[in-house]
Amino acid sequence: VDTNWLVNGEATAVDPADRGLAYGDGLFETMAADGGEIRWLAYHLQRLAAGCAVLGFPAPAPALIRGDIERLVPQSGACVVKLIVTRGVGVRGYRPPAVPRPTRLLGVGPRPDAPPECYTQGIAVQTCRLRLGENPALAGLKHLNRLEQVLAQMELAGSGVDEGLLLDCSGFVVGGTTCNLFAVVGGEIVTPSIERCGVRGVMRRAVIESCAALGRPVRVTDMPLAACYDAEELFVTNAVFGIRPVRRLDSCVFGVGETTRQLQSRLGYASSA
Amino acid sequence: VDTNWLVNGEATAVDPADRGLAYGDGLFETMAADGGEIRWLAYHLQRLAAGCAVLGFPAPAPALIRGDIERLVPQSGACVVKLIVTRGVGVRGYRPPAVPRPTRLLGVGPRPDAPPECYTQGIAVQTCRLRLGENPALAGLKHLNRLEQVLAQMELAGSGVDEGLLLDCSGFVVGGTTCNLFAVVGGEIVTPSIERCGVRGVMRRAVIESCAALGRPVRVTDMPLAACYDAEELFVTNAVFGIRPVRRLDSCVFGVGETTRQLQSRLGYASSA
Repeated sequence: VDTNWLVNGEATAVDPADRGLAYGDGLFETMAADGGEIRWLAYHLQRLAAGCAVLGFPAPAPALIRGDIERLVPQSGACVVKLIVTRGVGVRGYRPPAVPRPTRLLGVGPRPDAPPECYTQGIAVQTCRLRLGENPALAGLKHLNRLEQVLAQMELAGSGVDEGLLLDCSGFVVGGTTCNLFAVVGGEIVTPSIERCGVRGVMRRAVIESCAALGRPVRVTDMPLAACYDAEELFVTNAVFGIRPVRRLDSCVFGVGETTRQLQSRLGYASSA
Repeated sequence: VDTNWLVNGEATAVDPADRGLAYGDGLFETMAADGGEIRWLAYHLQRLAAGCAVLGFPAPAPALIRGDIERLVPQSGACVVKLIVTRGVGVRGYRPPAVPRPTRLLGVGPRPDAPPECYTQGIAVQTCRLRLGENPALAGLKHLNRLEQVLAQMELAGSGVDEGLLLDCSGFVVGGTTCNLFAVVGGEIVTPSIERCGVRGVMRRAVIESCAALGRPVRVTDMPLAACYDAEELFVTNAVFGIRPVRRLDSCVFGVGETTRQLQSRLGYASSA
């Protein structure tokens, strides 16, 4: 067993009629825990609540989620905590129940081992052929419709690269298959717009806020791939691994720059933590 | 309970680690059964197998699915049979297991009652505000990533219309939220392209084949909304309800034409069956 689960606070399984399975009608959060404490828990819960509001069903009370965490997350060591919230069980058909009773799943599993070089030297990234469909109504949400990311990851099988870079149908960069992307271009920190597709990452938020506090506000913009190739620094972020420099994107090689190191020392995990 | 389920042939529930729930990593078929027999079963199984091939996991053996049907579908009366096939349980992360063990769910529930007027006079359809994202890699598949359809259905709440019409991001018509669309334009039968989004419906296939047999081949094309407004006849199709005329689309009113009636008498269910 990779992960232990609670379903609505019980050690049970999922109803086959759950709309999370039927339609991907729900949201998830993937969180890093150390010694029983979840990093960025407030940000995760805020994003979850905002997503539930967009999808039109009530978010579980934070006290319930904190209760699940207390019961399942070990008090020592590092682990990954996955929270799934769906609109719950419904009769067949896309139309949601008038009074949804959301399903809440919390799972705890191992934190992936990563060599320290992921933080000190960086990772290899390859642009995927798959392009993300654009839908402003869903953009930013960490929803359960993730087949595009699955197909993109399948492109990487056997390639030896650590992460795939995804473009949208318009040809602009969105981010990695599992992370957001930042670049330093002409001294300015930039990150792709996620208004048409992509995920509003918790670590993305932390980096944007940290840069603002450092007096170097992040510019959010439509980024062509060429802007990434020409960047002085590239790094990727997610809530589980923190901040990792990109040492190679396709055939372009990058050093680990001062901005990346500074943000790693404030926010990044592993060797920089 | 709306629907009775078998999970891998057993009366059990779904593993919380199933990738169908985590990512919508799977496919489904919604089928009409009468007296224990599934309409268009061969077409459903062929579409399922083709979808599994695209997603890169093995389709369940048809004999297993037929066995589930024999066990669960009543020998009399009308019902709806829903089949879900996912890539199965996996460790956390988008990367699929090297050797997937798909999960197969079969559920049997009631066939929705519909007044005969749905077939004799037609249904009311309204164009949704939500636009479908475009992704040729997923277009045509009846996959489990259906949040767009859920949001579109939510637009219709309280409107009194029977079905929503969906356009893609380029502004072309794709079909209904739960069905495919056909139009008769200048005497020719046309249906929207589903190369960028939309579902390759089983009933769509049956209609296209039937029209070809009648010497009136269907033209598959990019259809602007205006082409629907200007059509002589409009009808929608799915495997559960068969063929229903559209009597109203937004503010345009349509009669039930000869082509629609002819196809209903060959393929359509309910009053025309």
